[in-house]
Amino acid sequence: MGIGAGKLAPVRTGLSPAEALQVVLDATPVLGSETLAAERALGRVLAEPVVAGRQLPPADNSAMDGYAVRAADCAGASASRPRRLRLAFEVPAGGRAERALGAGEAARVLTGAPLPDGADAVVRQEDVEAGPGEVRVGVAPAPRENVRDAGEDVRAGETVLEVGERIGPAQLGMLASLGRSVVAVHQRPRVAILSGGDELVEPDRDVAVGRIVSSNSYSLAAQCREVGAEPVYLGIARDAPDEIERHLRAGLGAEVLLSSAGVSVGDRDYVRGVLEKLGCPLLFWGVRMKPGYPLAFGRFESAHRPLAFGLPGNPVSAMMTFEQFVRPALLKMAGRRRWFRPRLEAVLGETLRKQAGRLHFVRVRLERRGAEVVARATGNQGSGVLRSMIRAHGILVFPAEAEVLEEGARARVQLLDEEFLASDEPGL
Amino acid sequence: MGIGAGKLAPVRTGLSPAEALQVVLDATPVLGSETLAAERALGRVLAEPVVAGRQLPPADNSAMDGYAVRAADCAGASASRPRRLRLAFEVPAGGRAERALGAGEAARVLTGAPLPDGADAVVRQEDVEAGPGEVRVGVAPAPRENVRDAGEDVRAGETVLEVGERIGPAQLGMLASLGRSVVAVHQRPRVAILSGGDELVEPDRDVAVGRIVSSNSYSLAAQCREVGAEPVYLGIARDAPDEIERHLRAGLGAEVLLSSAGVSVGDRDYVRGVLEKLGCPLLFWGVRMKPGYPLAFGRFESAHRPLAFGLPGNPVSAMMTFEQFVRPALLKMAGRRRWFRPRLEAVLGETLRKQAGRLHFVRVRLERRGAEVVARATGNQGSGVLRSMIRAHGILVFPAEAEVLEEGARARVQLLDEEFLASDEPGL
Repeated sequence: MGIGAGKLAPVRTGLSPAEALQVVLDATPVLGSETLAAERALGRVLAEPVVAGRQLPPADNSAMDGYAVRAADCAGASASRPRRLRLAFEVPAGGRAERALGAGEAARVLTGAPLPDGADAVVRQEDVEAGPGEVRVGVAPAPRENVRDAGEDVRAGETVLEVGERIGPAQLGMLASLGRSVVAVHQRPRVAILSGGDELVEPDRDVAVGRIVSSNSYSLAAQCREVGAEPVYLGIARDAPDEIERHLRAGLGAEVLLSSAGVSVGDRDYVRGVLEKLGCPLLFWGVRMKPGYPLAFGRFESAHRPLAFGLPGNPVSAMMTFEQFVRPALLKMAGRRRWFRPRLEAVLGETLRKQAGRLHFVRVRLERRGAEVVARATGNQGSGVLRSMIRAHGILVFPAEAEVLEEGARARVQLLDEEFLASDEPGL
Repeated sequence: MGIGAGKLAPVRTGLSPAEALQVVLDATPVLGSETLAAERALGRVLAEPVVAGRQLPPADNSAMDGYAVRAADCAGASASRPRRLRLAFEVPAGGRAERALGAGEAARVLTGAPLPDGADAVVRQEDVEAGPGEVRVGVAPAPRENVRDAGEDVRAGETVLEVGERIGPAQLGMLASLGRSVVAVHQRPRVAILSGGDELVEPDRDVAVGRIVSSNSYSLAAQCREVGAEPVYLGIARDAPDEIERHLRAGLGAEVLLSSAGVSVGDRDYVRGVLEKLGCPLLFWGVRMKPGYPLAFGRFESAHRPLAFGLPGNPVSAMMTFEQFVRPALLKMAGRRRWFRPRLEAVLGETLRKQAGRLHFVRVRLERRGAEVVARATGNQGSGVLRSMIRAHGILVFPAEAEVLEEGARARVQLLDEEFLASDEPGL
């Protein structure tokens, strides 16, 4: 047994998924901040509040194309008894009024134009008859009518965006309006990904007998990208301690180290030994779940070193352990508030059976049936059968001690495919 | 009135939102395909099926670390009556068996190693006692036990991914396993974005009196990115037909042209005239909704020219019209199956009132209360109040003819913030 289990420190094993997740999250830090160009910050999480340096709108302005007036001048006006006002000047868009509006005067304004001093209302152009040098106003506006008040959206000094808020399109519009071109956000985790195994080749190589493509690195990298983390692929390490050490060392600058295969108890599972040599003892090995039992997790003893996950080598097991443990850790690191998939209660469309002892994560297709959602397993649930994952809308949680889930019973489903929730008609 | 409404062709106006959306979607093409490196295809939609060029797994292989045997040789074996087999050879990971397994022989195999010819089962190493040159097998395996069958995941020639399927992590893992490094997907729409108005400046400029930041281009660009479209910002056009024409021409190579402001009926709304001059008559102007009434939509008469949306200039109106009309069009273009936000029925946490005639899109915050979701408006619903959008979890549809929605009544909500659905505990 290589750098075998015999030489290694004892480690907690056989944890429940919930226990293992708690160990992972307890060890997971929230990353510090970095300052980014605002337009690169879409999807990031604010690490400092955004305080308005100006009010919005910056000045009282017209909500309509029309005429700025003094409301008092138009008291009692109507279509049959219009009030005649002198057309004093025009306020250009992007400009300012040349002077204050006097009594008995009106000023032409376009939508968004600043209200002249002295004016306190805007009359829509539809309610005005314009003649040479004068206008006849056929309505009696209330004070502030058709006026957008300075500061009605934002007052100067006000906190407009909070720490922990995710930056979406409206937040970017607000940052632009405030003239903020940079913003402090939580760093996004970098995830170093290593595949281990003499049998592995990259997808562009021939698969001679006994060779298989190292596909896990591609699915894991995509899982990272989907949550906004940055994957760094370290390549394939052969089954030799020095080769694994060289690859792992290349990933020590990342926030998370993922090794796929090589942390089991087999003859060629050298990763654990190498991790311990590098100063990263395991916090657990082995979680009572299927697929994905041989999951290992460790934390380096020195600061500024990555969390280390040893994921199983089977394609479904690697993706599932990422989904259940790595994904929440990455979301926590990035400052996100919620770390877990949407859940729903589904009705079983078929009876599922297993032995008691391990929680099963059953990949299911979902189908709406009235107000209910019906779940059925995606065929062969072997941990090497990637198609069970491809076809999955969600992951059904088959509790550890249960042996049967009868057709028609309800079970909890973690929703993977957000498109399942999307609507196929607009509902207007 | 500039290139005023008087000179322009008559156009449908006052459509309901549902009618307007139908016009938009009817005019929207699904884009053709492009061939991409697989790892750049995350989130794209397949434009051709993926047919397996090889079977997966490529060969019968061991599901365990253990010993390949002929099941018949071990019939009747048990821990107390182990069967003695000659240890013939080892199959290396990534290698192949040097010869077929003979009767009375066992071969050492690690997980994933190809099964030697002649062998038909694998015994776990825990069930074997190994001695020099021989093993004592303490169980009687069934044929195929602990063997992963060649082709159990995928058979050669089988269609593994369908046209219209979105490429996620599992699909990328499958493509890698099949040795597919490029893949044909629907093109992603490019969206040319123009802001119009003499009062607009970029966020890095001083906002003197009467000037405001052109924030719509930033929020609209982010809305594009969120659905995987590629924004191309054309800058700010002053209120002059030649200036607008110059900017619009720069966007004619895109699939969608968005102009924010300038397609209303005001003195300086030149966009419509310029569009018609360029060969893009409007299909409608004006939708009975609030915010967002002054929405225009046109289609160029020549092929390979963009759809043109004239969005209102107010920040909320611009985002809302994008959300209701541009977003579904972009998803259709990209080959997506579902074009509309998830919806839910919410209970009103307050009474809402309006005049009959226009459908209102009320920005709401949502809160879970037991099995229900309670919706409350996000404060001031003015179309210039971007904070109403920032705080929104969703958009409540207040039907055109309704005048009141009482507290406690139910209403339809389009869900904007997917994080609202995410869970704050794992539920394992």
